[in-house]
Amino acid sequence: MVLISPSRRLRRTPFSEGVEAAGVKAYTVYNHMLLPTVFESLEADYHHLKQYVQVWDVSCERQVELRGPDAGRLMQMLTPRDLRGMLPGQCCYVPIVDETGGMLNDPVAVKLSEDRWWVSIADSDLLFWIKGVVNGWRLDVLVDEPDVSPLAIQGPKADDLLARVFGDSVRDIRFFRFGIYQFQGRDVVIARSGYSKQGGFEIYVEGRERGMPLWRKLFEAGQDLNVRAGCPSAIERIEGGLLSYGNDMTDDNTPHECGLGRFCNTHTAIGCIGRDALLRVATEGPVQQIRAIAISGDPVPVCDRVWPVYSNSKRVGQVTSAAWSPDFETNVAIGMIRMTHWDDETKVEVETPDGMRPALVREKFWI
Amino acid sequence: MVLISPSRRLRRTPFSEGVEAAGVKAYTVYNHMLLPTVFESLEADYHHLKQYVQVWDVSCERQVELRGPDAGRLMQMLTPRDLRGMLPGQCCYVPIVDETGGMLNDPVAVKLSEDRWWVSIADSDLLFWIKGVVNGWRLDVLVDEPDVSPLAIQGPKADDLLARVFGDSVRDIRFFRFGIYQFQGRDVVIARSGYSKQGGFEIYVEGRERGMPLWRKLFEAGQDLNVRAGCPSAIERIEGGLLSYGNDMTDDNTPHECGLGRFCNTHTAIGCIGRDALLRVATEGPVQQIRAIAISGDPVPVCDRVWPVYSNSKRVGQVTSAAWSPDFETNVAIGMIRMTHWDDETKVEVETPDGMRPALVREKFWI
Repeated sequence: MVLISPSRRLRRTPFSEGVEAAGVKAYTVYNHMLLPTVFESLEADYHHLKQYVQVWDVSCERQVELRGPDAGRLMQMLTPRDLRGMLPGQCCYVPIVDETGGMLNDPVAVKLSEDRWWVSIADSDLLFWIKGVVNGWRLDVLVDEPDVSPLAIQGPKADDLLARVFGDSVRDIRFFRFGIYQFQGRDVVIARSGYSKQGGFEIYVEGRERGMPLWRKLFEAGQDLNVRAGCPSAIERIEGGLLSYGNDMTDDNTPHECGLGRFCNTHTAIGCIGRDALLRVATEGPVQQIRAIAISGDPVPVCDRVWPVYSNSKRVGQVTSAAWSPDFETNVAIGMIRMTHWDDETKVEVETPDGMRPALVREKFWI
Repeated sequence: MVLISPSRRLRRTPFSEGVEAAGVKAYTVYNHMLLPTVFESLEADYHHLKQYVQVWDVSCERQVELRGPDAGRLMQMLTPRDLRGMLPGQCCYVPIVDETGGMLNDPVAVKLSEDRWWVSIADSDLLFWIKGVVNGWRLDVLVDEPDVSPLAIQGPKADDLLARVFGDSVRDIRFFRFGIYQFQGRDVVIARSGYSKQGGFEIYVEGRERGMPLWRKLFEAGQDLNVRAGCPSAIERIEGGLLSYGNDMTDDNTPHECGLGRFCNTHTAIGCIGRDALLRVATEGPVQQIRAIAISGDPVPVCDRVWPVYSNSKRVGQVTSAAWSPDFETNVAIGMIRMTHWDDETKVEVETPDGMRPALVREKFWI
């Protein structure tokens, strides 16, 4: 139980006041910003998320805005996913790789118009990579971090809550599409997306002064829906196989190793940095890949480092996220497993801090 | 009092085991890595640092390694400081700016040889900027993050401690120079540098497996010197005017605003990205600049956000770091002050979370 030392460098968000009033108990740091991790308890927060609706301060999903005539060309340079068919109003999950095919980030690209994009980033300063590329390639595009802070509404009652605030038409927003709505007389982008499998939305709040008014409005509107402040659930996201950049993948990994091969159109994504490096792995396949792993026994301790995975004393992979799942009554985990042991139901052993545990590799997550 | 949630993404260091055994009470996160902030208490740690010697786990000062024929050219592209006279064996504090002259990082460059450099970074993914620049400009240089973790030895007894472990010749290392020493039969770079004004060294530990053996060796050798585990002191670094990237400066600021104009040779640093943007500010000077600020009254609360600075109800600046100084018996602070109010002894008011406080702008820090 160690404290976090506050400083300006660990940036507060437009919703921090609300988060504190809701009794946040723990944080992580994500893109140099505070991200709540616990309100009541990991398990209580998890059960509530699956039953009701939560409002999440995910301001730390910072945006990188691309504006200008070369914005579309730049976006395609950044990802092996073929974006030619993408229309304004769509969101796309886009692996971003360096020249060796190593993952730099796994953001959601939001196409506002042909010459304006937001890239909603995971935990690395993707802004720096993009600015460097733009500088070196002399592209005609402005790149910066706008004053936009996502607020996620997640859980089975998310549609009901948002319909009360923005009208019933939010129910018609399709998955990974967004619409433009009004709040306090100004446009606000609302997408059907979010870092859980419980359904919901992400509201891209432009202008930090609009943060707390929207926060309060949502809580007023949702009282009888049992709305609460929440945050991405470490348990639920592992059950659902939602990867975390920095935890389950780093720049050592290709998208194919991360199971993101379906988002790589290596043959048609012309101009993508790292394409050459990925062509071979796209053809031959990776030698290790992300897998679900069920770890036996009592609830595991916190997974704050790589846990090696063995078979007959030979290292065959590693676990990078793990938690006890109350609903599935097992320890759920995410790891990278070598092809010799990645088939469904393969028995392995995981070296946890409190000893070796039998475990089972699974092809499917718990959904 | 909020906890930090551990995860692999908040990377442990080669010295984490030692840090935990020493009873670390709080962390911050810096370059996606744990950085201790409190052992006994802020004040006790501060007094001890000024009197004895501390071993600091500053692994979070990650290195970016540049290797190859274009390494020197690249290094000069990154900074407005003229590096032509720099020799292998030297360290240089180098502001790094983008094309607009905005600060991206303020690292120490370590010149290992003509074609091999380490850039010892502050809290931003400078690796990403450098990789983007290298890609776009097609430079012949390899860029990555090596397995190198700095361990700082700081305090008035630092020379005595290090001489016991590495021999008396460490006493002859000049400020911001380094020497190559031996530990466990392998080379180790030791520089006279560090993020305090108490004197000392930074040991660049290559190979994480060498971390704890070195840690233990230092503590064994320094028992009668009252050596302790420590960390950069929030109080001491403000007294000494040591800036913190992300706290006292961001990419909004030019080096000149940060008082780093003396490290900018804008006329001779040919090829530096951002040089055009900095030429004007180099000639005309900035309109706001970093200053020491003494804030009156009782100890201020933790400065976890910008505190506006006023004069006659007009905003004239902001405070970004502040702490009660036991030695100087005042609140010491760092802020950015407009030129109308930056002269020594100018009276201003600082809006702290518990009210407006009279304050005095100072041209010199408390050293």
